[in-house]
Amino acid sequence: MNRKMIIYTLGKLLCITGLLMYIPVLVALIYQETEGIAFAIVGAILFVLGISVSYNQPVKKNIYAREGFVIVALSWILISIFGALPFYITGEIPSFIDAFFEMVSGFTTTGSSILNDIEALSHASLFWRSFSHWLGGMGILVFVIAFIPISSGRSLHILKAEVPGPVVGKLVSKIRLTARILYIIYAILTLVETVLLLFGGMPLFDSLLNSFGTAGTGGFAIKNASIAAYDSVYVDTVITVFMILFGINFNLIYFIIIGKIKEVFKSEELRYYFLIILGAVILITINILPMYDSILSAIRYSSFTVGSIITTTGFVIADYTKWPMFSQMIIIALMFVGACSGSTGGGMKVSRIVIYLKNAKKELKHLLHPHSIQTVEFEKNSIDDHVIVNIHAYLALYLAIFAVSLLILTFFSLDFESAFSAVATCLNNVGPGLGVVGPVNNFSSLSDISKLVLSFDMLAGRLEIFPILLLFAPSQWRK
Amino acid sequence: MNRKMIIYTLGKLLCITGLLMYIPVLVALIYQETEGIAFAIVGAILFVLGISVSYNQPVKKNIYAREGFVIVALSWILISIFGALPFYITGEIPSFIDAFFEMVSGFTTTGSSILNDIEALSHASLFWRSFSHWLGGMGILVFVIAFIPISSGRSLHILKAEVPGPVVGKLVSKIRLTARILYIIYAILTLVETVLLLFGGMPLFDSLLNSFGTAGTGGFAIKNASIAAYDSVYVDTVITVFMILFGINFNLIYFIIIGKIKEVFKSEELRYYFLIILGAVILITINILPMYDSILSAIRYSSFTVGSIITTTGFVIADYTKWPMFSQMIIIALMFVGACSGSTGGGMKVSRIVIYLKNAKKELKHLLHPHSIQTVEFEKNSIDDHVIVNIHAYLALYLAIFAVSLLILTFFSLDFESAFSAVATCLNNVGPGLGVVGPVNNFSSLSDISKLVLSFDMLAGRLEIFPILLLFAPSQWRK
Repeated sequence: MNRKMIIYTLGKLLCITGLLMYIPVLVALIYQETEGIAFAIVGAILFVLGISVSYNQPVKKNIYAREGFVIVALSWILISIFGALPFYITGEIPSFIDAFFEMVSGFTTTGSSILNDIEALSHASLFWRSFSHWLGGMGILVFVIAFIPISSGRSLHILKAEVPGPVVGKLVSKIRLTARILYIIYAILTLVETVLLLFGGMPLFDSLLNSFGTAGTGGFAIKNASIAAYDSVYVDTVITVFMILFGINFNLIYFIIIGKIKEVFKSEELRYYFLIILGAVILITINILPMYDSILSAIRYSSFTVGSIITTTGFVIADYTKWPMFSQMIIIALMFVGACSGSTGGGMKVSRIVIYLKNAKKELKHLLHPHSIQTVEFEKNSIDDHVIVNIHAYLALYLAIFAVSLLILTFFSLDFESAFSAVATCLNNVGPGLGVVGPVNNFSSLSDISKLVLSFDMLAGRLEIFPILLLFAPSQWRK
Repeated sequence: MNRKMIIYTLGKLLCITGLLMYIPVLVALIYQETEGIAFAIVGAILFVLGISVSYNQPVKKNIYAREGFVIVALSWILISIFGALPFYITGEIPSFIDAFFEMVSGFTTTGSSILNDIEALSHASLFWRSFSHWLGGMGILVFVIAFIPISSGRSLHILKAEVPGPVVGKLVSKIRLTARILYIIYAILTLVETVLLLFGGMPLFDSLLNSFGTAGTGGFAIKNASIAAYDSVYVDTVITVFMILFGINFNLIYFIIIGKIKEVFKSEELRYYFLIILGAVILITINILPMYDSILSAIRYSSFTVGSIITTTGFVIADYTKWPMFSQMIIIALMFVGACSGSTGGGMKVSRIVIYLKNAKKELKHLLHPHSIQTVEFEKNSIDDHVIVNIHAYLALYLAIFAVSLLILTFFSLDFESAFSAVATCLNNVGPGLGVVGPVNNFSSLSDISKLVLSFDMLAGRLEIFPILLLFAPSQWRK
């Protein structure tokens, strides 16, 4: 284990995080808020701390899988702890565990909140909260790789551990260039959404922050009523389209930009993604039709909600807990499915679900014809046995974490529906759940231990379990 | 596909079932009940029908995997349909779907009932209902194989498809002898329990039927209050011990009988099985202690309930829906775990759970050391890759069936807790659930479609998914 390289990389991360905290400082200056001081102090400390541990480049620059996992897991824990400090110092979130939960929820792009009154926050804090979605969506280490020289060619293991999905493809041969291209596409799309929301009459501050929340598929709103506060069909439509867009594999968006449109139509995952969205919208629309005055408003609410949940964004324009149980179950199912791999979305990812079912189908065929050789085909390739073992190990660990979390949450007398949906929404990085953690409620009423368990779940969900579990493996830490 | 051999085997099954129906006829004679006539008629029809289609042995006697799956799946559906007829004819269960649900529940050893007043049934019907547990527990085709010559040496595929667990071991080299030994052990243990219950002052009829329910890990009670009706610490203790005993792999019990005690202590699955039981009893006892007047009665209720649920029997002596949510969650978790493979119990089986987790641990190790070769060790053997693929395909299909069933059940406005636990209890062949299908309620209030979906789940659970799904595979039916 190359500990020096781990510390060096974490140092670079803290530097960058420190610098980024000066953006909310700027926001505070514009709105003349004293909360900016907290961000300035914490930012400065992070910068100095970061510089001091990463001043000298280690001689051995190797980052293998082990180092990659440790760097990613520790990075996400560190930025959540340090990122929570300003909220705690300003007193806007008086409990540190609450502030930590809120930041984990921000960086992991979950969007579950412990705030009873979001609108009481300062502009600086609102900005930092939504900005954490934007950084966490594409990956803060991908950001670091894109703009700081760390280790030539060795950072693929970091990219692999941070970008969601079972298989990570490089866009171009150089990792750093891949990371830059990803962030540039990401920034441009975010900007386009901001401009479109501005056209709809939304203030600049709101447009930008809601675009951060959409782009990272995060879902932190800056109004207590979430997106419903704007009460605009135009706003709902723009956000629905962009949520679904950010749930697509960025490689495909890159292909569109460089003109390889054919590649996009070939994508099996994308086809299933749209099919699932279409199916869910149709079923929910029919199911909720009697509750609304026209089919158009039923479609508006169902498509926004389906887009918000499958991409694991978690924005809300309707209290779906008032919908029939059948619609609520589809929503819960969508939480587990999640978006496409290589997107900013969470959940299990459409590709994993498809491979699970294809592998099961293969096994059924194998049982009928024990001597035939069967392979799983996905995206026109036959899937490597090792990928199949890996995503099934992921499934087993996913279910184990789910069961243990559920047990701990119910220990604090949460009812079944609330506890189940709280774990589902956090482990899949969605945001709202059902029952006491439904879309018009929040997570503030939960016990501290429950909040810590759910924070673990959010990190495990965002990093797809392995890095965060390997942190606790004793063999990981042996020399 | 050897259709003639399938029809021939099904014919033999119908003969045997027809003959077995004359046991409740005998019961009706003893208690002078007219309901016996229904059993006599249906039994005679089945016998004649069975004889007429299996009079001539087919020339080709081969039974391969495909034939094995079809025979098993069709057998279970047929005996449930024909087994339900007497209830319908006597009018004791006026709806045929209800009668079918009750029989599927009986043969699959689930024990979920649609009866509001069990005690209103005739003795003959009560007997048939509990006897279906006994037959279904060890497997009705195993029974047929044991006592009727079908196909020399070819019936391993039937045994494999009917006996629960990922790996089936023959006790002796001959299949028919293996089946006979299994049934003889099974019958003796059932008899021992009956005698012990008699000693406790329970009437002979009750002792026998409750022993059927225990042996098959079924759980149909013959009193409305289930085992709580006897209100006896002795009875509870005997049944607890026997439930846990019938959850053990019968191969191990055979080893005990032939004196190979060492083999038993070596069994990894058995060790985990007892560890899980012990852990669950301790946690629940502590959790429910404030509700009972002494630690002994808390242990009595928790150990009976844990034994009843992990073995998927489903007998009840306490309304656990009144226990804290934490205890209810442990109960739900135990439903999924289930008993040991090769036992009469349902659920996923302890061995599968252990292999899932060991495989996940192997994958974590592999991620840290990508060039090392890792294998999954279980019961001192390294598990074949194909077994690992198979049990993971099982998991994916299990979850898919679970999700679809849940969706359909909630469509009929069932609440989340009730719907979730109804699917869990049926797919794992347990019996009682939570909420409206809790231990003091029953399944009568559900819609007909829900009952059919849950019947499918019970069959899928008992036959471990593959045979029942393959029945719907088009390629299965091609020549």
